[in-house]
Amino acid sequence: MKRVLTNDPRSFKDEMVEGFLAAYGRYVRRVPDASGVMAVGAPRRGKVSVLIGGGSGHYPAFAGTVGQGLADGAVIGDIFTSPSAEQVYRCTKALDGGAGVLLSYGNYSGDVMNFDMAQARCRDEGMDVRTVIVTDDVASAPRGREEERRGVAGDLYVFKVAGAAAARGDDIDGVEEAAQRANAVTRSIGIAFAGCTLPGQTEPLFTVEPGKMEVGMGVHGEPGIRTADLLPARGIAELLVDTLLEDAPEGAGSRAAVMLNGLGSTKYEELFVLFSDVNRLLRERGVEVHEPLVGELVTSLDMAGCSLTLMWLDGDLQELHDAPAATPAFSRGSLELPQETGETISAAPTSSAAATDAGGDLSESGAVALDALERALGALQDAEHELGRLDAAAGDGDHGAGMVRGMGAAVEAARGGGGSAGQVLARAGMAFSGAAGGASGALYGAWISAIGQSLGDGEKPDASAVHRALDSSLASLRDIGKAKPGDKTMIDALDPFVRSFGEAVGGGALLDDAWRQALPAAEKGADSTADMISTRGRASKLGERSRGHKDPGAVSMLYVLRAAGDALPKK
Amino acid sequence: MKRVLTNDPRSFKDEMVEGFLAAYGRYVRRVPDASGVMAVGAPRRGKVSVLIGGGSGHYPAFAGTVGQGLADGAVIGDIFTSPSAEQVYRCTKALDGGAGVLLSYGNYSGDVMNFDMAQARCRDEGMDVRTVIVTDDVASAPRGREEERRGVAGDLYVFKVAGAAAARGDDIDGVEEAAQRANAVTRSIGIAFAGCTLPGQTEPLFTVEPGKMEVGMGVHGEPGIRTADLLPARGIAELLVDTLLEDAPEGAGSRAAVMLNGLGSTKYEELFVLFSDVNRLLRERGVEVHEPLVGELVTSLDMAGCSLTLMWLDGDLQELHDAPAATPAFSRGSLELPQETGETISAAPTSSAAATDAGGDLSESGAVALDALERALGALQDAEHELGRLDAAAGDGDHGAGMVRGMGAAVEAARGGGGSAGQVLARAGMAFSGAAGGASGALYGAWISAIGQSLGDGEKPDASAVHRALDSSLASLRDIGKAKPGDKTMIDALDPFVRSFGEAVGGGALLDDAWRQALPAAEKGADSTADMISTRGRASKLGERSRGHKDPGAVSMLYVLRAAGDALPKK
Repeated sequence: MKRVLTNDPRSFKDEMVEGFLAAYGRYVRRVPDASGVMAVGAPRRGKVSVLIGGGSGHYPAFAGTVGQGLADGAVIGDIFTSPSAEQVYRCTKALDGGAGVLLSYGNYSGDVMNFDMAQARCRDEGMDVRTVIVTDDVASAPRGREEERRGVAGDLYVFKVAGAAAARGDDIDGVEEAAQRANAVTRSIGIAFAGCTLPGQTEPLFTVEPGKMEVGMGVHGEPGIRTADLLPARGIAELLVDTLLEDAPEGAGSRAAVMLNGLGSTKYEELFVLFSDVNRLLRERGVEVHEPLVGELVTSLDMAGCSLTLMWLDGDLQELHDAPAATPAFSRGSLELPQETGETISAAPTSSAAATDAGGDLSESGAVALDALERALGALQDAEHELGRLDAAAGDGDHGAGMVRGMGAAVEAARGGGGSAGQVLARAGMAFSGAAGGASGALYGAWISAIGQSLGDGEKPDASAVHRALDSSLASLRDIGKAKPGDKTMIDALDPFVRSFGEAVGGGALLDDAWRQALPAAEKGADSTADMISTRGRASKLGERSRGHKDPGAVSMLYVLRAAGDALPKK
Repeated sequence: MKRVLTNDPRSFKDEMVEGFLAAYGRYVRRVPDASGVMAVGAPRRGKVSVLIGGGSGHYPAFAGTVGQGLADGAVIGDIFTSPSAEQVYRCTKALDGGAGVLLSYGNYSGDVMNFDMAQARCRDEGMDVRTVIVTDDVASAPRGREEERRGVAGDLYVFKVAGAAAARGDDIDGVEEAAQRANAVTRSIGIAFAGCTLPGQTEPLFTVEPGKMEVGMGVHGEPGIRTADLLPARGIAELLVDTLLEDAPEGAGSRAAVMLNGLGSTKYEELFVLFSDVNRLLRERGVEVHEPLVGELVTSLDMAGCSLTLMWLDGDLQELHDAPAATPAFSRGSLELPQETGETISAAPTSSAAATDAGGDLSESGAVALDALERALGALQDAEHELGRLDAAAGDGDHGAGMVRGMGAAVEAARGGGGSAGQVLARAGMAFSGAAGGASGALYGAWISAIGQSLGDGEKPDASAVHRALDSSLASLRDIGKAKPGDKTMIDALDPFVRSFGEAVGGGALLDDAWRQALPAAEKGADSTADMISTRGRASKLGERSRGHKDPGAVSMLYVLRAAGDALPKK
């Protein structure tokens, strides 16, 4: 149902983090100047830190499991949206106790892009940062392609093992290796009976026909990979158990930790009914069930459904699984809460956005760039609802809101300093990524920044300079996003636009003429994306969600290109 | 939404308990031969035990908070239905470690009746059993009538204090007194946005218009005591905080434990948004917020809404609040799980139902009684849906299902032995109470048993003997239920029936004639209850839920009386 406990959907995440910190200050505190939380007493000098994270909407994942013996920190994105690379960077930096930081998160393209960018930046600064991506969802890719699978509730087991390894003093190699071992033997499968509704929206992301259920759903409100007839609890138990046992990793022993996770509005009493059947079946099939967890551990707002996770245990994994932990939402065994030492270990993060502010007033081209950004913001605001609707058909419905948030931050950053078009765009792009988060945020921000960097501080860039900037930024976009034309991403509008623009410039057209002549090519790409979403919407993304980043990016790109064209000086 | 993870709604509770025990056997085990769970290692010789309970549908309340440092056991009723007196008795008996047992539960008429009957029986057997009823819901009765208030999420605080007092070795006087002190300073207020849906039903218990919210809702799916315009989170925070501060108990200090409890589908992220405002307001108003809890602690299946609870602390209450605990769903501080000793302290419960089986075959009158019960069961099965619908308008919609369950057990008990009508009815009534639970179960069962006891082992009771039995059983019913004619309970059909029956008998009518002549009086009472529910349904029960036991009992009574009449020997 509709999220009603809100003030303004735009400030939802910030207020949520504030409330979380107010409630659980005995476990966690805020990462200074970042959208993240860290355990009281973290980082400890000489101890590896484990940083988890991703979008919010999954509580107690991820912030609710930060504390002694588990994660040292969590970086927090907007609802179902990856945190930005800037935020991941700041949290990683804050958690470095000199022994390295392990980043661990579920396998989604937005998270992978943003965490990878942050890892690269931290490594550039000399930190030892490693990554273990959780890939437990057996429904999202077949055997043999395990690394393409999404991360769902198995996240918690992998994070627990990593946190316990770090707590017992393993070095960064050991912590990374333990987390990898845990991920390699963790398998999940989920089912859903109804989609969830995002803050500020009135309709759920998807609905399920009465008498049906979705099998293999994700935790971002994605529907399943197939629809099946609804079964009674014991039929569902059989489906879940058999699916996981068929996919048991090689060399799995006979003992497994078992988690039956509710997604939000499938409640505890039902989960226990289901668990009575799950437990019986596992025992019948020779599995020794170890310390089960039945509850809400990785949720998806008020989505109805559940998932079953097995982590196959060996001696060391069991020791790490059983080790004590004390966090706001997950505690095990005996562990006193630590006291804050007051000591600050890590250096303040370097601000990369500030470095691109040349100071002083906007130049003539800088003013054009600001105007283009402002017009783009206006166009995106007008189209926010349409973009959200298109995105809901293909994903989680947040594309419009994310674009408005990102472009709003870009405009603010542009206004907040002086300089040329190149300098304005370079800092606007960084602000975009920082505010929007997610795959779109990473890609749009990187694209705008790359244009700025290519334009540099040159005044009055002509059509050729703009073409070079568009061309090189498109190349870096492909490099980050791995998307090709036809993958139904922003590339589908941008690539034909850039080619058409290049042809016009080659034919001698001036900047604003060339821009106008290239727009129909972008329109064609955007229309084809919109059509595809409307007609094939759901089917088109199945099985691709973990690697691709399908969204109506081609449509929003068209709005941005049109608005930017209106800002260009008339010949 | 609909509960889909079920096998058969009738076995829902048993499968739920089985799954719970399978999942959390490291904390709890089954109370032998009873619908309840007890902490591993409980009872401890010489330690007071705390037994909590009530209907299910509120997880983690109540079974999820059984364990070291909190409750020693929980007796588990069907969804939103009090456990029967027999079940409470068995659990109390199992938990007696020789130092007494404190019973603590929320103030609902069904629970009060059943726990009180069990307490009386235990005291008869020489156990020291005390009761502290939780009355934290400020919306359900005004100041000055605090003892009439319902128990909602404040349950957890009172149970925690009682459990901690018992764990530190307080004697039964001390544990009782601590729990009373906790209850006296605990205040809650709730709001709801949508009702929940019971297993086996397709519609929620109530709905809330868009843009509205219910203020002062209960935890059994009851709607609120008033409907208000939906407010943004900060407006709701103000409403909740101000309501509780206006109702602060005399002598309340400045420090309070604070719990923001989600009812089921209002999710954690929203609760944190709300808590950021609640926390700010409490601080602004001078309240020192102590170790808040934000989460799902006392739920109502998938009801949408939340409640705010304050427990005003003094030094001792804070010590008890802060003491360690380790239970499936609530842990605090350091506490190792105990090992099972294998020692059994308490004596097996005495079975009161077995005592009424005279053995041998049914006599002629016994066969009539069995026939009457079987016909009543058939009539109730036919009417189950209608009774449920009527009950949903006034309460939680389980009256039809409870009556069928109770009468089914009564028929089985009747068939399971021999004897006269009196002996058959005496044991059938006990079985009814044991199976049905709730207020109706307690009342119907007591009524049937009382008729049986009055009839005794006499064969062929005549109209006068039946009138004496009806008259005395009506008196004991009033005694247990405290309901008067006009209170819209089963009494409204039964009382006029018994009076009319008495007049007919006084006029010389034979048994089946007198019965037939009296039925119209029962019909009138039943019709008036049904009308009242249909037309004023909701309003009629407001503020009375904690003491009364309004349900369509007059309607089911009519079905029972009609069916019984059909079984009577024709003159």
